[in-house]
Amino acid sequence: MCIFCQIINNEIPSCKVYEDDKTLAFLDINPVNPGHTLVIPKKHYENIEEISEEDLAAVIASVKKVGRLMKDKLGAAGYNVTLNNGAAAGQDVWHLHFHVIPRHDGDGHKTWARRKYSDGETEMIIAKLIS
Amino acid sequence: MCIFCQIINNEIPSCKVYEDDKTLAFLDINPVNPGHTLVIPKKHYENIEEISEEDLAAVIASVKKVGRLMKDKLGAAGYNVTLNNGAAAGQDVWHLHFHVIPRHDGDGHKTWARRKYSDGETEMIIAKLIS
Repeated sequence: MCIFCQIINNEIPSCKVYEDDKTLAFLDINPVNPGHTLVIPKKHYENIEEISEEDLAAVIASVKKVGRLMKDKLGAAGYNVTLNNGAAAGQDVWHLHFHVIPRHDGDGHKTWARRKYSDGETEMIIAKLIS
Repeated sequence: MCIFCQIINNEIPSCKVYEDDKTLAFLDINPVNPGHTLVIPKKHYENIEEISEEDLAAVIASVKKVGRLMKDKLGAAGYNVTLNNGAAAGQDVWHLHFHVIPRHDGDGHKTWARRKYSDGETEMIIAKLIS
């Protein structure tokens, strides 16, 4: 059975942050910053393509609650919410999970480098996307 | 007026990827990878703390649709969904926006370094979070 389903079933211990009927939030054991929390649906879905809109709404509502805790209880200045969807995006547990990462001024984590589009490149991409 | 509200009102041009009654998705002009899309609520909310659960559910449902486009139309192997909430987390436009970043095997973008908790550290954090 999936490791996150085992956590939901209390077969593997976890440090629970928040729980309701449809979702569970618990500490990531390898945090980017202390308090880094994972928010998951209790029903097993591999990724955001599989999850129902209803369960996805429940998960993001729990993310919102956990984010508030990062500020109110841990004194975070802000937080990142991230979903790594697919191995190419860094997903390594095949049960959908949002990361909520508390952030502090000057903690050193950098967003990824950005580039510019070349002439005509956006038109080509939009043509693909809305085809 | 906020630059994203001006985009919603068609006062500033954008490359639209998806639109419905409550949300808009358009290309980020400085992409991490080509096709990098921003998904926003049409109603102005500064951040995830401000947005209503109903509008947040609409935004994440649009994120799900855009993610599907990344795979089906752009051939992405996966994608990251990220929300930078607050200046300390890298937010630089004060209208809530989720990034959907198409990813390709070996494209070189690294997730942030992780650490381990020291003895007793998780208990201290959980005590704060659930206090």
